Amino acid sequence: MKLPCLLLVAAQFSRVFGLWPQPRSLQTGSSALKLAPTFNILVNVGHAPSDLENAVSRTKTFLRSDNLGRLVVGRGASDSAAVQHAKSLDTLELSLAHGAAVKSITDEARLPIGTRSEEYTLHVPADGSSATITANSTLGLLRGLTTFEQLWYEYGGQVYTVEAPISITDSPAYPYRGFMLDTSRNFFPVSDIKRTLNAMSWVKMSEFHWHVSDSQSFPLEVPGYTDLASKGAYAPSMIYSPSDVQDIVAYAGARGIDVMIEIDTPGHTAIISAAHPEHVACAEASPWTTFANEPPAGQLRLASAATTNFTAGLLASVARMFPSAIMSTGGDELNTECYVQDPETQADLKATGRSLEQALDVFTQKTHAAIRAEGKTPAVWEEMVLDHNVTLGNDTIVLVWISSANAAAVAAKNFRLVHGPSDYFYLDCGAGEWIGDDVANSWCDPFKTWQKSYTFDPLANISESQAHLVLGGEQLLWTEQSGPENLDSIVWPRAASSAEVFWSGPGGNLSTALPRLHDLAFRMRQRGVKAIQLQPMWCALRPGKCNLDS
Amino acid sequence: MKLPCLLLVAAQFSRVFGLWPQPRSLQTGSSALKLAPTFNILVNVGHAPSDLENAVSRTKTFLRSDNLGRLVVGRGASDSAAVQHAKSLDTLELSLAHGAAVKSITDEARLPIGTRSEEYTLHVPADGSSATITANSTLGLLRGLTTFEQLWYEYGGQVYTVEAPISITDSPAYPYRGFMLDTSRNFFPVSDIKRTLNAMSWVKMSEFHWHVSDSQSFPLEVPGYTDLASKGAYAPSMIYSPSDVQDIVAYAGARGIDVMIEIDTPGHTAIISAAHPEHVACAEASPWTTFANEPPAGQLRLASAATTNFTAGLLASVARMFPSAIMSTGGDELNTECYVQDPETQADLKATGRSLEQALDVFTQKTHAAIRAEGKTPAVWEEMVLDHNVTLGNDTIVLVWISSANAAAVAAKNFRLVHGPSDYFYLDCGAGEWIGDDVANSWCDPFKTWQKSYTFDPLANISESQAHLVLGGEQLLWTEQSGPENLDSIVWPRAASSAEVFWSGPGGNLSTALPRLHDLAFRMRQRGVKAIQLQPMWCALRPGKCNLDS
Repeated sequence: MKLPCLLLVAAQFSRVFGLWPQPRSLQTGSSALKLAPTFNILVNVGHAPSDLENAVSRTKTFLRSDNLGRLVVGRGASDSAAVQHAKSLDTLELSLAHGAAVKSITDEARLPIGTRSEEYTLHVPADGSSATITANSTLGLLRGLTTFEQLWYEYGGQVYTVEAPISITDSPAYPYRGFMLDTSRNFFPVSDIKRTLNAMSWVKMSEFHWHVSDSQSFPLEVPGYTDLASKGAYAPSMIYSPSDVQDIVAYAGARGIDVMIEIDTPGHTAIISAAHPEHVACAEASPWTTFANEPPAGQLRLASAATTNFTAGLLASVARMFPSAIMSTGGDELNTECYVQDPETQADLKATGRSLEQALDVFTQKTHAAIRAEGKTPAVWEEMVLDHNVTLGNDTIVLVWISSANAAAVAAKNFRLVHGPSDYFYLDCGAGEWIGDDVANSWCDPFKTWQKSYTFDPLANISESQAHLVLGGEQLLWTEQSGPENLDSIVWPRAASSAEVFWSGPGGNLSTALPRLHDLAFRMRQRGVKAIQLQPMWCALRPGKCNLDS
Repeated sequence: MKLPCLLLVAAQFSRVFGLWPQPRSLQTGSSALKLAPTFNILVNVGHAPSDLENAVSRTKTFLRSDNLGRLVVGRGASDSAAVQHAKSLDTLELSLAHGAAVKSITDEARLPIGTRSEEYTLHVPADGSSATITANSTLGLLRGLTTFEQLWYEYGGQVYTVEAPISITDSPAYPYRGFMLDTSRNFFPVSDIKRTLNAMSWVKMSEFHWHVSDSQSFPLEVPGYTDLASKGAYAPSMIYSPSDVQDIVAYAGARGIDVMIEIDTPGHTAIISAAHPEHVACAEASPWTTFANEPPAGQLRLASAATTNFTAGLLASVARMFPSAIMSTGGDELNTECYVQDPETQADLKATGRSLEQALDVFTQKTHAAIRAEGKTPAVWEEMVLDHNVTLGNDTIVLVWISSANAAAVAAKNFRLVHGPSDYFYLDCGAGEWIGDDVANSWCDPFKTWQKSYTFDPLANISESQAHLVLGGEQLLWTEQSGPENLDSIVWPRAASSAEVFWSGPGGNLSTALPRLHDLAFRMRQRGVKAIQLQPMWCALRPGKCNLDS
């Protein structure tokens, strides 16, 4: 009498939907297993760093508070009989591999990109004996804990899985798995950034690319350059103080996330004129369409020695605020006409006998030297290698944004690159033109769905010999039409697409990904991140039924 | 020495940006005027209804709590000198016109569409003497209070205007100014609906079109038909009880909003099969693409006498839950193949000797008779008059949705109509295809920006003799990709576009509208509705500077 019942149960259970990103290697069984009321996590790490202890506490909290019912009709009702008689799991043990040095999660997460250890193994036996996570670093243990949290569902007060035993060996396909936030077009309080870092950590992202300033506002209080924010922020309450920055980078680090700050130069700097008009050409020049891609116009006087020194000093001071080994100096969308019509720049070029391109080369070398002196490797937007002829260190990281088609050209120049192409990863596309008296579509229409992002191929048109140059990628939110009001809803769960592409590798199946992505979105909502509904709940509860062929 | 100073002040003040919708007649001056600390609102209405007293309380609260600084650089800083020496306004007096009957806001708001009195006059003298609102109904007084709230800014603890005296004579161009919410594809708690009603009232909307049920879920508990929700809602917590409905209609009524409920029939009813499989043809038939425009397939067996009686009884019971004079029976997207392949329907047609169209006519006549017996005028989607040949009462209201081009055809058939065209007013367009394994754009791409909606012409291609048939219009949110998480951000401030088109009349200027719309969005955020940023805050603070020609 037992066998038919068991078979029925197995057929209903299907598979673990909750894992995102999908582990590189996963074996699951079909036994029910529940967390014991006394369930605990043991940290078998001598002198365990406090950020690891805190990560364990968070996991224990999530296991208790996620309260996520399985996404099937009836939620967990059909599991309850099996769960009632299931074995109980008392303990999860965390261990570092033999000989691994004990370092904090934070320290590991801030190592140069490509040298961080994130791999882990996870075993959940079916018989109730201890589950284990083993890794070569505390960061790897954190990644394992994050996976462990996604194994469990709740029904009738029981926290359980129906797929024990579970065995996972996991490591990221690419080290750079990022999200970029623009805090200049509109401002985001620290609490919004922290909530975003939470969600990023749940999908094992590794880099927060913080585009902190732009032409519209300068919300960062920089020691020695405080007038940039006091005169260039939208309001005194819309400034990130040095202690805010410390708070954010510590919060990120503890969650396995490095913070790459970007001070975009020499373009996208109009607002610097509020404090230092002497350093900005064509500030608020009209019509802005002649001098910039969006209002207001204004660029640093790159040919001026004084402006170059000012910028180098600013960048160095910002560099000292951030512990990361990388920092972006921007370099996108330089407008030539702005400099052609700027008498000061023309005089500077004439005095030095340089062309604008030569002046840009000098400017870039000096500003990069300034951040290298602070121990940072520079990152730049793609134009700096594709459209200009500036001298860049071989180790410079290039951020591809204009088109996915441009990555191959960057790789061909032998630069390391991060994918952030507007045609796949721009989260702001598709909301229409924001220029006031225009009824056009957004320039990067249409909206980039999770499906579109999910189909991205990091190695498209990149030769095997250049594949090592691809560090990973990021989804990006430019905030002309965003603020705290729609931050979560515009980012999540869509940004999880690239997190899986760059962790699990590309080529994932949309149909099998969707139920897992629903699961992730539901779990995010349970945790206070307002991830949107991707489909009617009818579909979320019936995997596959809302596919084209069903 | 005084004159140059005054001129400077006048130049800086520009105009009242905060009014939305724009009053039909508006005169403003250039004097500063502040609210006295003892400011009070006197209701010169004998036996004032409690919903008017409550509206006055809300206005007093908003005047104290909006704390909205003017959207200019420095916010109100440049006003403070003038405000310091300004007269104080002590009193706003509300009066009904001589001979006007005293009725509650709620009762007035639920009168048949086109018979409600919403007009009012508002005077704010510059000398500190009492401001006045006069109207022919308490609903008109409410509209005036809503305008009054939008006149004031805050700086340094002072609530003030810089444009006294202010004189407004106002009335709506069209009586139906609506918003439609679909609570079937995804569920919205009562609190979300109430917050939406708040925002609707702030832009003087008059109709909440509640598309409560559809094929995916049936969240309405209907007396006598409670199994529809108990078996067809997503969860027990995702059901609107009769007391929830009472709560919602009372909340709406007090805010000048009528609630038009819609039970979409005979299509869009698949989930009824959960409780009554006998009434549903092709329920969850596969592939859904053959039987429905989206999953799941399933339509009421319109040729069945039993199903017709069931539907009529259901509609009558729903009608009794709602005090409005109108009710929608739906009628969109009927799929013929579903009935062709349904043996029961084919047998019913054969037995009665009717064609499918004839059966639809009988079904519609009987269901409409049922709601007319409850005192309701029916509303239907456009297909019922453009694609089918059913017998409809002359007073039936037709909801145009497929295309703005179809309104003229509806008017040509001499039906009253409400504009809700997907090409202007669908708030969900542009978020990409939601079918799981598809990477297409959304069917109604692109995103409908506020600018697009704002350019809508209610009388395009409609003859002068048929113009009286146009009741107004509504923006609509179908919620395949929405839930509580993005309700505010997808609706506001965009839905304010049509609110102005149908109150102030079409033809508004995008450039002068935008600063007012920013103001509205900022005020909404101050009041807890998460309206999104339409532009970088840099633009919001500098009216006109982010237009194409600036």
